[in-house]
Amino acid sequence: MFPTDPISNLAALIRCPSVTPAEGGALSTLEGMLAPLGFVVDRVVAKEAGTPDIENLYARLGTEGPHLMFAGHTDVVPVGDEAAWTHPPFAAVIAGGEMYGRGAVDMKGGIACFVAAVARHIEKHGRPKGSISFLITGDEEGPAINGTVKLLEWATKKGERWDACLVGEPTNPDNLGDMIKIGRRGSLSGRITVHGVQGHAAYPHLADNPVRGILQLTQALMDPPFDTGTENFQPSNLEATTIDVGNAAVNVIPAKASAAFNIRFNDCWTAESLKGEIIARLDRAAKDGALRPGRDPVRYDIVWNERPSHVFLTRNNALIDSLSGAVEAVTGRQPKLSTTGGTSDARFIKDYCPVVEFGLVGQTMHMVDERVAVADLETLTGIYETFVARWFGHAAA
Amino acid sequence: MFPTDPISNLAALIRCPSVTPAEGGALSTLEGMLAPLGFVVDRVVAKEAGTPDIENLYARLGTEGPHLMFAGHTDVVPVGDEAAWTHPPFAAVIAGGEMYGRGAVDMKGGIACFVAAVARHIEKHGRPKGSISFLITGDEEGPAINGTVKLLEWATKKGERWDACLVGEPTNPDNLGDMIKIGRRGSLSGRITVHGVQGHAAYPHLADNPVRGILQLTQALMDPPFDTGTENFQPSNLEATTIDVGNAAVNVIPAKASAAFNIRFNDCWTAESLKGEIIARLDRAAKDGALRPGRDPVRYDIVWNERPSHVFLTRNNALIDSLSGAVEAVTGRQPKLSTTGGTSDARFIKDYCPVVEFGLVGQTMHMVDERVAVADLETLTGIYETFVARWFGHAAA
Repeated sequence: MFPTDPISNLAALIRCPSVTPAEGGALSTLEGMLAPLGFVVDRVVAKEAGTPDIENLYARLGTEGPHLMFAGHTDVVPVGDEAAWTHPPFAAVIAGGEMYGRGAVDMKGGIACFVAAVARHIEKHGRPKGSISFLITGDEEGPAINGTVKLLEWATKKGERWDACLVGEPTNPDNLGDMIKIGRRGSLSGRITVHGVQGHAAYPHLADNPVRGILQLTQALMDPPFDTGTENFQPSNLEATTIDVGNAAVNVIPAKASAAFNIRFNDCWTAESLKGEIIARLDRAAKDGALRPGRDPVRYDIVWNERPSHVFLTRNNALIDSLSGAVEAVTGRQPKLSTTGGTSDARFIKDYCPVVEFGLVGQTMHMVDERVAVADLETLTGIYETFVARWFGHAAA
Repeated sequence: MFPTDPISNLAALIRCPSVTPAEGGALSTLEGMLAPLGFVVDRVVAKEAGTPDIENLYARLGTEGPHLMFAGHTDVVPVGDEAAWTHPPFAAVIAGGEMYGRGAVDMKGGIACFVAAVARHIEKHGRPKGSISFLITGDEEGPAINGTVKLLEWATKKGERWDACLVGEPTNPDNLGDMIKIGRRGSLSGRITVHGVQGHAAYPHLADNPVRGILQLTQALMDPPFDTGTENFQPSNLEATTIDVGNAAVNVIPAKASAAFNIRFNDCWTAESLKGEIIARLDRAAKDGALRPGRDPVRYDIVWNERPSHVFLTRNNALIDSLSGAVEAVTGRQPKLSTTGGTSDARFIKDYCPVVEFGLVGQTMHMVDERVAVADLETLTGIYETFVARWFGHAAA
């Protein structure tokens, strides 16, 4: 009953519809894999007023050091237009050598492979000389308030300490072995609302259309680029993620319009300096809007998402070399050490121990028809198994 | 029992709660006024699949030409926040020289005055040498599918022909006598949808953000202006009435974005030529979007609202002069001949005979505390009575 097969591990996880904040059975399924391996499993429910309660899981095998943490999440983003999927998003259908399902690569696949790697290690070598733990949250794709942050605090309070962490997020752009993440850009989100004056579409002079204002302000956020990148980081980038008015009446000018944006920023910026730049751009655009003859100044407000993600860079050679060597040994490819891509919970973990990230190929993450090559699951399991052996070898040396 | 008093006529009509699509007793009340004057009254129920059945009324006095039509509607818009009304919206309370009630100015007041004007004419001069008819719908404030259009078709089928029409909508911005409407701008609405590729906000190169496209296309619709106006019309004007994406996830680039717009256009354009201009603007903007390095062309589609309103201008001097002269004779004011404002059912009637519009002061239409100065009811009745005499005089000459 050892969960040594990453394919069946992943199929079981995909079949749990764990769209944030729902647990969807995913953590129970994972617990059912870890308990037979000897892990002591804790289910930790995190709460905060105004947010949904979130289920998380912490499991440890062994009591001594050195202590290696594997971190990840079982929650997934919404499926989008379900009718557009070639195979249902929670069915784990295998077709053309690929397994389809929401979370296949982001990141139930990584969890499925690490579980299989540990199971194989134990089967071949017995328990490692030290400890392995799983720190798995159900709130990575959501607001990330009741997830890794609270789980790390909970574990630290009961005495847990770690020497290194591997996050199993998808890190490879095209092929397994392309890329290890050794740092991350920061992330900052906000929502701007433009306040106009409602009125009849035939009498625009009696109204003030906020759609014009939201166009001007959103355009000012998108252009020009914020910077051109640094030694370890790519250029900062802003995406307008939504514009919402919700006016169904064709002959009515609406009262307000809002837009949300997300910016991924490099070490040119702190969250604070970036907020300053954004406010400056919006104020300029609002004033330019005012210069249009016969138009009021654009009245707007901005609300920032509570917790920006700070930019970071990891420099632990034992950890990076164990992982990089494992990738090269299994795939023959020398992975690039990168800081590209999205944020991950590594941004919280880096305050507790050195952290690197390596997982599947990320091309279909968050998309319709998210899917993973079945062959990659076997390869990644091999890489993880080799990494575990090398890291404990390094630590013992 | 002749309905010569516009105040009691209006009170009786206001007390019928005829919010579209309800008849509310309003047409029966009107029929009760017209029958004693000798009108032959037809009640016409119009039906169309997917829409509520609507009661309408057609009444004719006389059988010979010339034939003058008075057109209007007894349906009213909803009361909004009833608790906010100073006097109940269907009680016809008179306070401070004003009668309160939904429909007081838009446009039960106009009907009440025209009925009184005809009654007075008959009392003084007997029946006019020709015919007068009332074409009254219960579907002007709603979708206008089962109203004036169907009633005109019905009447035409049974042989009715008209020489001129007066629509009794409120046309005066501030004071009775300010303004006659001799035409209307056209109105055209549509919705554009930009199709992008959904993805993760941190990997914009794997996605195609439709928000950028919808900004470019909507901007292209709004600027530059379509024209600078003509002799009889103000400049055409487009309002973007909504933009909708509905993406709640801050880290997701959405799959599509849509925007709706309404354009009020003058006699520089037909609905068809305007559609051509809009498509040309959108295609240009979509292509410019494609020139941005590394971006796909903007993929979009457009859906037009089924029934555009066509622009029209009435050039019938007998009709315009009769009305204008009546206004001046009674009020001492020379009314402006205007084409401003929204659409009205005149846009349908203009295909059957020359049409002008004149009614009460429109300031409180569609608002809480809709009300009319009692003195204005007497004045408008005088204007209508003078107009009827002058028009038949003109026609006889």
